[in-house]
Amino acid sequence: MTPASLPLFQQRLEQQLKYLMQQGLPDTAVLEPAMSYSLLLGGKRIRPYLVYVTGQLLGARLEDLDAPAMAIEALHTYSLIHDDLPAMDDDDLRRGKATCHKAFDEATAILAGDALQALAFEVLSSHPYQHVSSTSQIKMVQALAKAAGAAGMCAGQAIDLAQTNQPIELDKLEQMHRLKTGALIECSVKLAYYCSPCQDQAVLHALLTFASALGLAFQVQDDILDIEGDTKTLGKPQGSDLKANKSTYPALLGLDGAKQKAWQLYQAALTALDKLPGDTSELRAFAHYIIARTF
Amino acid sequence: MTPASLPLFQQRLEQQLKYLMQQGLPDTAVLEPAMSYSLLLGGKRIRPYLVYVTGQLLGARLEDLDAPAMAIEALHTYSLIHDDLPAMDDDDLRRGKATCHKAFDEATAILAGDALQALAFEVLSSHPYQHVSSTSQIKMVQALAKAAGAAGMCAGQAIDLAQTNQPIELDKLEQMHRLKTGALIECSVKLAYYCSPCQDQAVLHALLTFASALGLAFQVQDDILDIEGDTKTLGKPQGSDLKANKSTYPALLGLDGAKQKAWQLYQAALTALDKLPGDTSELRAFAHYIIARTF
Repeated sequence: MTPASLPLFQQRLEQQLKYLMQQGLPDTAVLEPAMSYSLLLGGKRIRPYLVYVTGQLLGARLEDLDAPAMAIEALHTYSLIHDDLPAMDDDDLRRGKATCHKAFDEATAILAGDALQALAFEVLSSHPYQHVSSTSQIKMVQALAKAAGAAGMCAGQAIDLAQTNQPIELDKLEQMHRLKTGALIECSVKLAYYCSPCQDQAVLHALLTFASALGLAFQVQDDILDIEGDTKTLGKPQGSDLKANKSTYPALLGLDGAKQKAWQLYQAALTALDKLPGDTSELRAFAHYIIARTF
Repeated sequence: MTPASLPLFQQRLEQQLKYLMQQGLPDTAVLEPAMSYSLLLGGKRIRPYLVYVTGQLLGARLEDLDAPAMAIEALHTYSLIHDDLPAMDDDDLRRGKATCHKAFDEATAILAGDALQALAFEVLSSHPYQHVSSTSQIKMVQALAKAAGAAGMCAGQAIDLAQTNQPIELDKLEQMHRLKTGALIECSVKLAYYCSPCQDQAVLHALLTFASALGLAFQVQDDILDIEGDTKTLGKPQGSDLKANKSTYPALLGLDGAKQKAWQLYQAALTALDKLPGDTSELRAFAHYIIARTF
């Protein structure tokens, strides 16, 4: 059950990103090929989708939402490029294609990642917003910086690397995922909120509860797919977590326990949506799509 | 001739950065030791100094200037950490001490750099400014993101790596330096301008001309010191440019030609200062300090 708006927003984002890469950079941007390669490699575009669909629900304008949607994907893409590096997860494949440092070289991949992080903040701060005040724009920059940094995504990746080869407890695994992927997923709905005219803190709180449960459900499902999925559909070798000696939900809870956990998180996400105004059917469909996905 | 305010502002920045590292990050910030190690390794603090002294000249408040001063140094520090990596310049020493990936490990160094870039934007956007509007804050974020990214610093480093082992023309060398170091030095005065009540574009233009000449003079002097300096004073091995087969001003212009070039840029910087209001004596002293330095 794919939400009807998913392919539409995916398509909108692709066009926006292509235009950004073609028109937004001057001739001196020698890193553009490597940046474009990774940014336009496809992917589920989950974070930008959350920006668009949440923003629409709260009355934000699509033209304004393009900026946070592109920014969060640029930031996510930089993190994938760096995570794949030999000194980190040392992966050759990403979305079924050569990783950035394999398609180019290590130095280029490091720099393309660095430049994509800067680009995220440039897009977020330079967009010709129609209905977003400077104060709200600054709040978006704050949210993205915090989610990306030393108390967010980067900390999650550091904990992930440190826990490789040594089994960790469930709460530590959860903390790692909440930082590594949860921070950016929660940031997606936060950006949508600040991009919208809505100023109801209870709405923001419900959205963050939804995103937090969804982000963790996504990760549990990822661990399940690492066992049950196949390499072709995943775009990365099946069993790569096991091979890398990483702690996973199925390893700690068993396969059935992990599936139960994913279902509980799905229910928690739906419960949070009950507190939101308007038609949340697309967000509900999206939550189902996340835990039912096979890729 | 060291400007009288240099040690004062250096000291102020050290205190601000120490406080930021001690108080600004939660317990989950596992990368803090590596970030602090590189951020508090000392250095000339040229960029924050330019923020402080230019901002003061334009009537900005010191408490407000702390944010852009810290942000630009965090960004500069991240770039040094990544430039030193084995896949890039592969340097073991920085400021006389082990580089970040030597003191920790490669993965930690990549992540600490990434987190420092995010921290720069977090500090810039989260500071409790007293006299800086949200509109000006957004302009600061724009300026920093642009200077750091694919059309600024990252492009400069990419061109630098590409030109290693093959001689390049003078204009290409200059373009590389204008991007690699010039972009952040120009950004320093831009941040100070937006942090101040001044809204005179002619002032901004003169400041950028000054910073541009100063940034290039700094680089020419760097190349000269690579030949004339000694390892202990430099904090890095003397002759490392020659060893790395990098194009330099002395290689293209001869040692005397390079010294003449540095002097011309110094004069251009002073001429730009003539167009500024107020007492520019500290900026003049600073320009002299830059081209007369031996470290």
